[in-house]
Amino acid sequence: MTNPIKVGIVGATGYTGVELLRLLAAHPNVDVTAVTSRGEAGVAVADYFPSLRGVYDLVFQKPEDAALDQCDVVFFATPHAVAMKDVPALLEKGVRVIDLSADYRLKDIPTWEKWYGTTHTSPKAVADAVYGLCEMNHDAIKEARLVAVPGCYPTCVSLPLLPLLKEGRLKENYPLIADCKSGVSGAGRKGNIGSLFCEAGDNFKAYGVGGHRHLPEIRQTINGLQSNIADSFIFVPHLTPMIRGMHATIYLHLKPDTDPHDILSRFYKNSPFVDVMPSGSAPETRSVRGANLCRISVQRAPEQDVWIVLSVIDNLVKGAAGQAVQNMNIMFGFDEQAGLGCVPLLP
Amino acid sequence: MTNPIKVGIVGATGYTGVELLRLLAAHPNVDVTAVTSRGEAGVAVADYFPSLRGVYDLVFQKPEDAALDQCDVVFFATPHAVAMKDVPALLEKGVRVIDLSADYRLKDIPTWEKWYGTTHTSPKAVADAVYGLCEMNHDAIKEARLVAVPGCYPTCVSLPLLPLLKEGRLKENYPLIADCKSGVSGAGRKGNIGSLFCEAGDNFKAYGVGGHRHLPEIRQTINGLQSNIADSFIFVPHLTPMIRGMHATIYLHLKPDTDPHDILSRFYKNSPFVDVMPSGSAPETRSVRGANLCRISVQRAPEQDVWIVLSVIDNLVKGAAGQAVQNMNIMFGFDEQAGLGCVPLLP
Amino acid sequence: MTNPIKVGIVGATGYTGVELLRLLAAHPNVDVTAVTSRGEAGVAVADYFPSLRGVYDLVFQKPEDAALDQCDVVFFATPHAVAMKDVPALLEKGVRVIDLSADYRLKDIPTWEKWYGTTHTSPKAVADAVYGLCEMNHDAIKEARLVAVPGCYPTCVSLPLLPLLKEGRLKENYPLIADCKSGVSGAGRKGNIGSLFCEAGDNFKAYGVGGHRHLPEIRQTINGLQSNIADSFIFVPHLTPMIRGMHATIYLHLKPDTDPHDILSRFYKNSPFVDVMPSGSAPETRSVRGANLCRISVQRAPEQDVWIVLSVIDNLVKGAAGQAVQNMNIMFGFDEQAGLGCVPLLP
Amino acid sequence: MTNPIKVGIVGATGYTGVELLRLLAAHPNVDVTAVTSRGEAGVAVADYFPSLRGVYDLVFQKPEDAALDQCDVVFFATPHAVAMKDVPALLEKGVRVIDLSADYRLKDIPTWEKWYGTTHTSPKAVADAVYGLCEMNHDAIKEARLVAVPGCYPTCVSLPLLPLLKEGRLKENYPLIADCKSGVSGAGRKGNIGSLFCEAGDNFKAYGVGGHRHLPEIRQTINGLQSNIADSFIFVPHLTPMIRGMHATIYLHLKPDTDPHDILSRFYKNSPFVDVMPSGSAPETRSVRGANLCRISVQRAPEQDVWIVLSVIDNLVKGAAGQAVQNMNIMFGFDEQAGLGCVPLLP
Repeated sequence: MTNPIKVGIVGATGYTGVELLRLLAAHPNVDVTAVTSRGEAGVAVADYFPSLRGVYDLVFQKPEDAALDQCDVVFFATPHAVAMKDVPALLEKGVRVIDLSADYRLKDIPTWEKWYGTTHTSPKAVADAVYGLCEMNHDAIKEARLVAVPGCYPTCVSLPLLPLLKEGRLKENYPLIADCKSGVSGAGRKGNIGSLFCEAGDNFKAYGVGGHRHLPEIRQTINGLQSNIADSFIFVPHLTPMIRGMHATIYLHLKPDTDPHDILSRFYKNSPFVDVMPSGSAPETRSVRGANLCRISVQRAPEQDVWIVLSVIDNLVKGAAGQAVQNMNIMFGFDEQAGLGCVPLLP
Repeated sequence: MTNPIKVGIVGATGYTGVELLRLLAAHPNVDVTAVTSRGEAGVAVADYFPSLRGVYDLVFQKPEDAALDQCDVVFFATPHAVAMKDVPALLEKGVRVIDLSADYRLKDIPTWEKWYGTTHTSPKAVADAVYGLCEMNHDAIKEARLVAVPGCYPTCVSLPLLPLLKEGRLKENYPLIADCKSGVSGAGRKGNIGSLFCEAGDNFKAYGVGGHRHLPEIRQTINGLQSNIADSFIFVPHLTPMIRGMHATIYLHLKPDTDPHDILSRFYKNSPFVDVMPSGSAPETRSVRGANLCRISVQRAPEQDVWIVLSVIDNLVKGAAGQAVQNMNIMFGFDEQAGLGCVPLLP
Repeated sequence: MTNPIKVGIVGATGYTGVELLRLLAAHPNVDVTAVTSRGEAGVAVADYFPSLRGVYDLVFQKPEDAALDQCDVVFFATPHAVAMKDVPALLEKGVRVIDLSADYRLKDIPTWEKWYGTTHTSPKAVADAVYGLCEMNHDAIKEARLVAVPGCYPTCVSLPLLPLLKEGRLKENYPLIADCKSGVSGAGRKGNIGSLFCEAGDNFKAYGVGGHRHLPEIRQTINGLQSNIADSFIFVPHLTPMIRGMHATIYLHLKPDTDPHDILSRFYKNSPFVDVMPSGSAPETRSVRGANLCRISVQRAPEQDVWIVLSVIDNLVKGAAGQAVQNMNIMFGFDEQAGLGCVPLLP
Repeated sequence: MTNPIKVGIVGATGYTGVELLRLLAAHPNVDVTAVTSRGEAGVAVADYFPSLRGVYDLVFQKPEDAALDQCDVVFFATPHAVAMKDVPALLEKGVRVIDLSADYRLKDIPTWEKWYGTTHTSPKAVADAVYGLCEMNHDAIKEARLVAVPGCYPTCVSLPLLPLLKEGRLKENYPLIADCKSGVSGAGRKGNIGSLFCEAGDNFKAYGVGGHRHLPEIRQTINGLQSNIADSFIFVPHLTPMIRGMHATIYLHLKPDTDPHDILSRFYKNSPFVDVMPSGSAPETRSVRGANLCRISVQRAPEQDVWIVLSVIDNLVKGAAGQAVQNMNIMFGFDEQAGLGCVPLLP
């Protein structure tokens, strides 16, 4: 076996950070050599996350003190508008970057600036970034120096739509609705009131109905696959009282003589990370808990010309850290499943 | 003050039964005189439900031993196909009946028999039963001898649609979608695996996508209000890991120049049990926890000709026991809010 | 009926504040005239807490803008070290004060200063304050101008011990252990990481094993009732993934020929707020959810000379806002149960 | 690498069964060849547990149809009183057995019969069975033909006590109290009312205070290590609203000049499955979620001569399936950590 690559993680105290640490611990080809956190610099990873006691012998460092430029690849698990400042310098030094934040997801800079409310400081890198939806951009990811890992909602919604859009099977001028439900970890590990146990627990609500940052991201993906569909896309996210998990219920209209189950099954036949379930089944979020999987089922609405597509992921794995590792595997020519063998934890 | 009426509850060990007991304990005009349970006959209510210690001094009886015919009104909080056997005899003796089960909700007997999988044994009573959606059938309820309390999903979906359908504002031939999410108490207090803490907890899933018993019930209501709409109605229920609460996300197309917020606000202006919230808001289920309330908000999908209506209820209160008490209040000429003053419990 | 009294609430955006608002809404003798919040001044209560839409027509004010001195009584639902600054001026103006914070609970100023880490600014008021454990200090509360509402743990632990200590039945020199478990709302409505849904959910842990602020408070109560016991008192609090509720498991040694069930039953025979359950039963926290109740059961450890006492409260009601209202009722000569009639919400 | 051994699982539809399947899927030395279930015979494992789609290509069989006697080892994940009927025949055929049920845990047959309420049908096998607390009986397990996997509570309580008892450090005639809290999965995957989401959720209670089947099991372990201590052992289990996880809070008295942290640290220095944490820390259950780990911390009660020991496990892993696999590894001379490398899932 060859030497493991050196991996750095910027912003490793959040949920996607600790999930990266969990997954990379089981990865045969990597050595995590630097983890950064402004707030926790000097603290041992194993003290901060007791779940990692005995697994890592690393200490959080300030980003400027960490030898990130000695890494083969650096993951950014930071809030938006952090990576865009530090990525160009790393790229110049030949370090590859996998950004889990939103900074390089949108190709259109004004759109990004509108939705994220700030000026983009490295627009050039945006042009070179590859959108890391692995099942869509596999070949481009192989050559990528910078990957923008898709958001959780975009992953959950785009994977089932991808084969249908690619074959141009959606009807134009009909609404395409994604009614999505997310676990609370999607809101990150920040002390905001709305994420408290006593606020999010035993409660259910929609949010961002008037506009959510993942809307333009999904539209960009749709637009790249079939024209005249993205404008009809409607997206309503909801917060559901669970820790991990995301569920999309998608209502769509298909052109006549389309068999969506067949199209999806063929497209994902050899995919280890997308599971097209039998017709009539309904995937539950826990069936992918902890795993880099998207499970999808398709059925026709009773007596209607509308199709209902159900899609589930673990928002922290296939919707974030797992997909990031999958991207790394593709970029470095590793077995695509390396480090991603975790069987879902049930119950 | 006049004498309180005598109230009986059949099947009082389930969640709607114990919720009726909670609400009726605070009701100034009633005296619960009989509670029945086949399984727990002989057990004191306060021993079975310690939350009611000091509140009730009653013992569960077998239905045949309870003096139900001495009651002024009897609530049936039973599984389907129980009430239809016992109700006719009670009606004949002049006892009024409020049925929380599904037995008298559907006017079309073959439809009922198809969805509930058994022969209806008192079809005549069906014809006389009033569908107890109070905000729709207020006058008929006043005179009713038998009320069929609507199901929880039908209540949550019908209340926001009612004013729009009544004014004929929905566009024909467009999908009308209700993506609904229910807390686990909606499944009842039965030992089925799917309702276990370790199955329903930290999990989210759709169910009944291919057909749910509340679908024909909602269609019947739609049909009675605006024609040519019910056939386009799509209903997908989901199970969400909370105890109480139900959330409907409704996607609808309206005729030009329709202001749904205005229509709903006017319709429910004087209603103590339906709260139309300001535009742009999103109701959360806990804002009605324990209360006989439906909160609704309306907004347009960004850049689309589709409206999104959000509606929440406590499935055990406005979706069951609370609405049952509201029906009783109307039937007996009590203050409609009697016994229903509970301020929502938050957090 | 006489005119309602005027009530003010300082710090009404926390969990004890909103719980006070819920309880006082149903109180026949009060009129809430002022609610304060530094952070939310200018916001309507009904906008901030949609659960209170239609219930209150009040706007949060800065404390200095609110006419607190026009109130008959002011509740402080603030973090510690706030009330002690503002209370003396209110008392001087003849306003009675019920403080839900810790500022006036400990009679010994150095002890308070040690545990709360700051200088006490109104030690004189401490001397006049009555410790508001209603079942212990009923008569003193009647005359009180300032009541210090007990902490949640002290309430849950002291109520079952009170009758036994009062009769001097505990054995000296034996450990007296209170292993306590609290729902997350006990940590307040603050954005601290440990209270997040994804941190506190699906998790259980002890905390404060090396010392918790409620330890000296419970010791003070014990000391006032039976000597030579407080020093043997051990207190270990735990955080449990539920919203409301507190459970104490108390291990104690009693002098020979003591029947603790009999002593508790006699002591609380006429108490509407303390329920001594039959021997052998085990109270569950949800049996008091939303209600101003403490339920207690007692049993002997199998084959041992150790007694196990189980005690549950809703930490926000009998452990905070409900007990505060009970104190108010006693202070103003109202029916002690006024506003406290809520039947526990189950499930 | 040598050929994998053949493994059978009896009663594989419960929580310990599906957890065994999860762990064994990642085990390099085993091939699961038979899984049985009376109720689900004929159903594919991957259909019954969608979390295992793509992982297993097995069908549940009736026990009598499964070629269990062709297995090298058979796990029993059954309710009590099942294994004792089928185990002797398997042992005779040279099949080794690892029983996760209670049938072979208690050496004293009358005690077993008293607590489990039935006659033991294979008392001879009891004599040969090795109690599979790996950290205590490592050498005996190597040679065992039949292992009785300890219960979850006994594992969580015994591991921290083991080094102290072994060195005879507990004081006689002082109470030894284990106040334990379990997640709901400990109650199994059965449709009993008490395990429903709406019963166990948002709720906390003690149970089995008057006697729990794990009491004699723990006493047996204590008795085997230090005399005159078991009779003072008190055990109170509680149910806490989480899926996985178990927490023991143990109160004990030690002989003078005992440093329990030092004793535990030395004893478990080289153990991969027991983590003695720094003094002053408090382990949380989620820090071991999904992992075969017990984390322990020790501290002295403030100003007292009582020690507080905190211990956490995942009840389904170190408390059941994980410990069962660890036993198998020891029995068959595999790497003791094989299949048990799962890093805890946090959050």
